[in-house]
Amino acid sequence: MIADSIIAADYILTMDDSLTVIENGALAVKGTDILDVGTFDEISRAYTSERVTRKQQNVIFPGLINTHTHAAMVYFRGIADDLPLQEWLNNHIWPAENKWLSPEFISDSIELACLEMLKGGVTVYNDMYFFEDSAAHATKKIGMRAVLGSGILDFPTKSGNSPDEYLAHAESFIKDWKGDELISPCIAPHALYTCGTETLKKAKAMAEQYSVPLHIHLAETKWEVEEVKMRYRMKPVHYLESLGFLDETVLAAHCIWLDDDEIEVLAKRKAGVSHCMESNLKLASGFAPVVTMLMSGVKVTFGTDGAASNNDLNILSEMSTTAKVHKALSENPTALDAKTVLLMATRWGAEALGLGDRIGSLEKGKRADFVSMNLNKPHLTPLYDICSHIVYAAMASDVDAVMVNGRFVVENGRLITADEQEILSKARQWSEKIRA
Amino acid sequence: MIADSIIAADYILTMDDSLTVIENGALAVKGTDILDVGTFDEISRAYTSERVTRKQQNVIFPGLINTHTHAAMVYFRGIADDLPLQEWLNNHIWPAENKWLSPEFISDSIELACLEMLKGGVTVYNDMYFFEDSAAHATKKIGMRAVLGSGILDFPTKSGNSPDEYLAHAESFIKDWKGDELISPCIAPHALYTCGTETLKKAKAMAEQYSVPLHIHLAETKWEVEEVKMRYRMKPVHYLESLGFLDETVLAAHCIWLDDDEIEVLAKRKAGVSHCMESNLKLASGFAPVVTMLMSGVKVTFGTDGAASNNDLNILSEMSTTAKVHKALSENPTALDAKTVLLMATRWGAEALGLGDRIGSLEKGKRADFVSMNLNKPHLTPLYDICSHIVYAAMASDVDAVMVNGRFVVENGRLITADEQEILSKARQWSEKIRA
Repeated sequence: MIADSIIAADYILTMDDSLTVIENGALAVKGTDILDVGTFDEISRAYTSERVTRKQQNVIFPGLINTHTHAAMVYFRGIADDLPLQEWLNNHIWPAENKWLSPEFISDSIELACLEMLKGGVTVYNDMYFFEDSAAHATKKIGMRAVLGSGILDFPTKSGNSPDEYLAHAESFIKDWKGDELISPCIAPHALYTCGTETLKKAKAMAEQYSVPLHIHLAETKWEVEEVKMRYRMKPVHYLESLGFLDETVLAAHCIWLDDDEIEVLAKRKAGVSHCMESNLKLASGFAPVVTMLMSGVKVTFGTDGAASNNDLNILSEMSTTAKVHKALSENPTALDAKTVLLMATRWGAEALGLGDRIGSLEKGKRADFVSMNLNKPHLTPLYDICSHIVYAAMASDVDAVMVNGRFVVENGRLITADEQEILSKARQWSEKIRA
Repeated sequence: MIADSIIAADYILTMDDSLTVIENGALAVKGTDILDVGTFDEISRAYTSERVTRKQQNVIFPGLINTHTHAAMVYFRGIADDLPLQEWLNNHIWPAENKWLSPEFISDSIELACLEMLKGGVTVYNDMYFFEDSAAHATKKIGMRAVLGSGILDFPTKSGNSPDEYLAHAESFIKDWKGDELISPCIAPHALYTCGTETLKKAKAMAEQYSVPLHIHLAETKWEVEEVKMRYRMKPVHYLESLGFLDETVLAAHCIWLDDDEIEVLAKRKAGVSHCMESNLKLASGFAPVVTMLMSGVKVTFGTDGAASNNDLNILSEMSTTAKVHKALSENPTALDAKTVLLMATRWGAEALGLGDRIGSLEKGKRADFVSMNLNKPHLTPLYDICSHIVYAAMASDVDAVMVNGRFVVENGRLITADEQEILSKARQWSEKIRA
């Protein structure tokens, strides 16, 4: 049988149900899909292809999934660090957003975000921001996959004047993009302290009407939890539960200040959680109860949050930091072992975004979204355990090639779908204006 | 005046007393030393050189300093992860060490460690391990700087049978290497639970006799603190103080389980502390009271510990993780700001190792030990604050060039003093034997 391409690897982490690791493996790809995965010998016997890629010392694994970000904020990377949260937000981030956000800003900044993420092995991002139509076009042009949701708020910003206007935006965005191969629209009510009951209900109804996921910030700060309790006399998760908001279509970002009874509700409703360790640490927001959530069966996944509070969009770094910090917090070095961390970053991420049938593992019939990492590096030598190497020692810069939806977008560590230097130049031009 | 080389940079972080950052700067180097540092215009007017290096978009800062490692353990990187501490040590690390350590093992593995560290911008490491004479020769051959101490224990290992034998080893190592330009010998009694009172006293006396630094593990685990209290009816720091052990020549690694009164003693005695965040997290040893130590005036610096518990020798990663984790622990996003973190990784590291007069900042008359980092990267674009970029966004792989003692050892991201692929091949050969 003829494949479009056959890609060999010393190791393939399939992330299938048995977490199969294939040594001397290969993937056969046809169109957008994985035709087959097996040993190189098996694949070579069953398929022929004019394009066979065989590198020395590499590992292939499913594309990493960033389940919570505000990708366009890369243009504000490092604009205000080491500051108290309110000063950071009120005096720096919000004024910068109010001044600069526009379809052009989003279009240019999203290119930089996609470039950074793809080069670091991230093939999908789940975004909540503004002017998402520009984000969708830019992402599709670069060849990355994304779940995009226009932020919904109760107060006016440059991109809307009222909840109904944001919702109307969201609806037309859904209609425009539903069914696209790379872009999945979602509904993104910002948070419980920025969206009232009516807004949340309407957002939920719209998500149900169009069968799209919901993306919301939840319990990121102590202040927010107190605010919700004061307004509704309920803890945040119980309040959402009272609205019938929670189910497996919901992706809740942060989830730091949750009590055990709230974690049980999230588990029962099969809601996904995006853990944004580095942002939570840097803003001193707190430590999410990740070990408890995992033990309760909550699907915990990785998000970077925006680059203004991280300061990168590096999921490999989140994986390493998260695994280590939660071992120490739980006083248990066996917590968050490397395989669990890899699941969180791949299959569970896909499932939490409603994409589990298409991506998240390397299996026959799924889309060909994968990363090939170069293991021929000092910090990855010697090699005893491929999973622990990826989680504890690999860097984003070890990513050698990335395929999304059957198309190579990164080869030899370079983006091939757009001009890297042009993207960087545009970013510098914007930042000169922003700084001035 | 003629300089051997002039190296320009968009930014030079001098890390001098005023933390001067020079835009469009340059360094003039002659022999092993920094002849001058200033703006490119100033340096160009005052000096001529046949070798002028001028790259676009780079930053130069003092070489990073790894104040606690067991460098040769890179050959055990990832050999046993996600395990309880005792199982990790007793069933994996100690048996591997007992079986494999030899002068040849150390000589080969140190090359890999130096390669990894230099490529990540680390120009000095402070080592405690065995067969340090082999480590010294390998390090010097690669052209890196190190403070090396043969481990001193009360029990026999492959490298010694008794405390006196270890001490005799240490003494001859000191005599052989004292005065070397790159290698500084030190005395390294392992810890309070592995060295009795007599051994510690003899180690201290030898350090004083030869004016060399002391390197010791301190308060890494709760168990260790309980053990010390049981044996000596004193907390670890008070016990060392009672022996007259503590002064500014002491570098204490870990310092996790310290009470405030012990921190005060460390501050009063001006002992340096090596904070090994990632190793401490990964082994679930605990969180060192870094913010309290810094507020008390203790010189806290960065160590990677061995790669068997980290799993890399990456100081940039330690800087980022440490800054973020301690913000969250202290619930204060202004804690461990980027400039403090850079001081810890450079000047304070040099001072804690007794090398403050020679390295740690880029100033006239100091040795030319520095890193040039390429800023022309997606994750470092745009750039608003050079210090926060290095701490929060840079990766080891962004290091472009490294000079140690006036000699370039890394250029264009490659080691130029030895063959990288040969070092990696040797590591793979050893690991095949170790695995078998």
